[in-house]
Amino acid sequence: MTEVEAKKPQETLQDRLAQVLELLHRHDLAEALAQQHGGESLTDPAQIDDLAQLQLRLDELHPADVAHILEALPLDERLAVWQLVKTERDGDILLEVSDAVRETLIADMDDQELLAAAKEMDADELADLAPELPRDVVHELMESLDAQQRERVRSALSYDEDQVGALMDFEMVTIREDVSLEVVLRYLRRLKELPGHTDKLFVVDYDGVLKGVLPIKRLLVNDPEKQVAEVMATDPVTFHPDEDAYEAAQAFERYDLVSTPVVDKGGKLIGRLTIDEMVDLIREESESEVLNMAGLREEEDIFASVWKSVRNRWAWLAVNLVTAFLASRVIGLFDGSIEKLVALAALMPIVAGIGGNSGNQTITMIVRAMALDQVGTGNTLRLLRKEAGVGLVNGLLWGGVIGFVAYWLYGNWALGVVMTAAMTLNLLLAALMGVLIPMTLARLGRDPAMGASVMITAMTDSGGFFIFLGLATLFLL
Amino acid sequence: MTEVEAKKPQETLQDRLAQVLELLHRHDLAEALAQQHGGESLTDPAQIDDLAQLQLRLDELHPADVAHILEALPLDERLAVWQLVKTERDGDILLEVSDAVRETLIADMDDQELLAAAKEMDADELADLAPELPRDVVHELMESLDAQQRERVRSALSYDEDQVGALMDFEMVTIREDVSLEVVLRYLRRLKELPGHTDKLFVVDYDGVLKGVLPIKRLLVNDPEKQVAEVMATDPVTFHPDEDAYEAAQAFERYDLVSTPVVDKGGKLIGRLTIDEMVDLIREESESEVLNMAGLREEEDIFASVWKSVRNRWAWLAVNLVTAFLASRVIGLFDGSIEKLVALAALMPIVAGIGGNSGNQTITMIVRAMALDQVGTGNTLRLLRKEAGVGLVNGLLWGGVIGFVAYWLYGNWALGVVMTAAMTLNLLLAALMGVLIPMTLARLGRDPAMGASVMITAMTDSGGFFIFLGLATLFLL
Repeated sequence: MTEVEAKKPQETLQDRLAQVLELLHRHDLAEALAQQHGGESLTDPAQIDDLAQLQLRLDELHPADVAHILEALPLDERLAVWQLVKTERDGDILLEVSDAVRETLIADMDDQELLAAAKEMDADELADLAPELPRDVVHELMESLDAQQRERVRSALSYDEDQVGALMDFEMVTIREDVSLEVVLRYLRRLKELPGHTDKLFVVDYDGVLKGVLPIKRLLVNDPEKQVAEVMATDPVTFHPDEDAYEAAQAFERYDLVSTPVVDKGGKLIGRLTIDEMVDLIREESESEVLNMAGLREEEDIFASVWKSVRNRWAWLAVNLVTAFLASRVIGLFDGSIEKLVALAALMPIVAGIGGNSGNQTITMIVRAMALDQVGTGNTLRLLRKEAGVGLVNGLLWGGVIGFVAYWLYGNWALGVVMTAAMTLNLLLAALMGVLIPMTLARLGRDPAMGASVMITAMTDSGGFFIFLGLATLFLL
Repeated sequence: MTEVEAKKPQETLQDRLAQVLELLHRHDLAEALAQQHGGESLTDPAQIDDLAQLQLRLDELHPADVAHILEALPLDERLAVWQLVKTERDGDILLEVSDAVRETLIADMDDQELLAAAKEMDADELADLAPELPRDVVHELMESLDAQQRERVRSALSYDEDQVGALMDFEMVTIREDVSLEVVLRYLRRLKELPGHTDKLFVVDYDGVLKGVLPIKRLLVNDPEKQVAEVMATDPVTFHPDEDAYEAAQAFERYDLVSTPVVDKGGKLIGRLTIDEMVDLIREESESEVLNMAGLREEEDIFASVWKSVRNRWAWLAVNLVTAFLASRVIGLFDGSIEKLVALAALMPIVAGIGGNSGNQTITMIVRAMALDQVGTGNTLRLLRKEAGVGLVNGLLWGGVIGFVAYWLYGNWALGVVMTAAMTLNLLLAALMGVLIPMTLARLGRDPAMGASVMITAMTDSGGFFIFLGLATLFLL
């Protein structure tokens, strides 16, 4: 990995993006570039000047910032800018962009470009990228590696992307326990460079079994005459490669870790986890929660084609179609009542809508608390009691208000009472379902956020219509 | 801060919580403790035994894990466990729990306990806690500090909680540029201990102005004879105390930082930011996004009282009440049409519901992309075009299906066509509003996620009813 220092932090991402957009649009540079794929032989001097400035600007940006700009550009402009990025930076940038955007960039590169971009990568980075590369490129890359690297890529690829093994890197600095700190310091000097996020050295025996860790802090403040064994921490946090990566990320967050060793079943050191990967994971995890709740399958490239977006969203829309149809049939059951008292048609969406909103609040709370491991399925009863209490208070309060409004509008006090009763019952239903839906999904081993919003709305719609129209039919007609 | 090593990572949070719950419930220990607030003089030998085990268990847990257990316990059990925690650990644990839970713990402590808990805290930790402590406790704490510490607490308190100044700490290790690395190494050894997350030393001149940073990595691999000035990085990422903390967190994420200096306008070093605070911020930011979208004002203690929860949720429920009432009045406009064709009442929630779901998908995408700075208000038109495309495809596709179902149910092909047209138009409205609502909120300087779900549903409900009933009145009656 090349090291480019991050500069000018006082300039925000939006500023940088605006500058790039300005250069792309001032003299239609983006269109000119798109037409002659590659960026050569522009004739308009204004465009040539802009191009030079743009190139300069891109060269001085950190790979993560270039990645951000690429993500924020529509496809045609994205590819035009991508062509301007120096080939030796391609690899770093590919590792930084989101999966959806990476796909569009890789589709625009030929095999030679891909091989060049991947050449400088470490084993863990290659493993990140490999699933998205063409098969023959991966084959050629594997051929070019030495046996140890190849084994590492294979091992990283053998884990699911939510397992520790898929996120670990192999840049460990290992030392023995029977040497002095002075020796360690001299050894480090010979290395010339240390891997990023090296806040501890890993102490291993001759079989590679982890004996402890030597935090750099301790290396620095202790007498150099001391032995590693005297100073090292013998009971560090470690992970196994088949553990859940999100559990590891939570441990990093709780214990303020920077790096940890990964060991196999026999205690042998095989890799390490670092905070930067864990931060990305925490970010992704909360993103996928938001997306799941709204019924989106995965992160979308915001400038993806209409067709791709349709495919990402159709599954839950289809579910919603079925639930909406069911709600409609519930109303159909009562069409006689509606014919007699058309006010029911106007009032029923209030009962359903407020139930849906309230249910969404409950389910959001529960899903969050479950993601943070604050509640498990064991708390169901207690949470039900509390949420039912909230539903009851809100139902009597807001149901009372809307019941009064209904009386005032239609001059029918019985209608008002039915409205209040229906609101209260539907809010109780919303509370019940807001707790039970995520708990049930979790018991079934599914993501508790999955389509939560669609499901709760389905319940409160059908339920709300049934309760309101049912009560009205019983008591008003 | 006391240092307790995090142990047994193979044991999950849920396991630990389950153990504590088991001990609390096996012989009704929790109730016995709650009755005699303080935990003394139990008589049942089984309870005494459980108590001893529980105490042992709590003592060996990391403060972050105790905090997690407290968050996951209902109020009465939470306070019983809180009484069992050793007084000298109170401070560390208070700093770890969520705001909502911290409030319940502080309410249970008297002034002497609070003073004891806060005694060992650093200036930045005190500033975190101060707003929630009783006024006279804060006063007494400030009295006990030396002038520099007091100044630091005051300064940290003078910033908003979303500014860098409120999150920085003061545990900087500073060195001069005109000394050799050997001298630096000897200086560090004299310090005996380095602050957590020290991945770089801060190089300052005699006026305290930051000249550069010396990464520990470079200190370790370079020849000790070299001068600091030769080896240091002279253009590091720095922040000002009045910058937006979330921007800083994004920079940490992008550039894989562990710590950065904070400097004032004159370039003087005044503090530092560390990755652990930034991780917490990233977590909180995505939480508040989820909560805002669902119309919740703030994070809720999952075991909060019914009354507290009602207060947290009422604002958006009230908004929802108004919007639901408006939707109801829209239907009221068409009660003549519904009386003539009661099928309209059964079909109209389908149009509204699918519009709401689709609008929620769009608004979720846009809010996320805005939070990641991927789109600004400048992209509005392009996004509108794309989302309108998605809406059109979905409208014709799913609207066609549901139109056919309407024809099949009611044997009225004109009704089917009106249904398809209304679905398509409402999905276009959903796309339009899904883009415009967050963009408009951002232009007004508000959080684009604020009540997004309530607002979009309001639009697609009223809009859907109006479009469907309006078209039906025009073409069917």
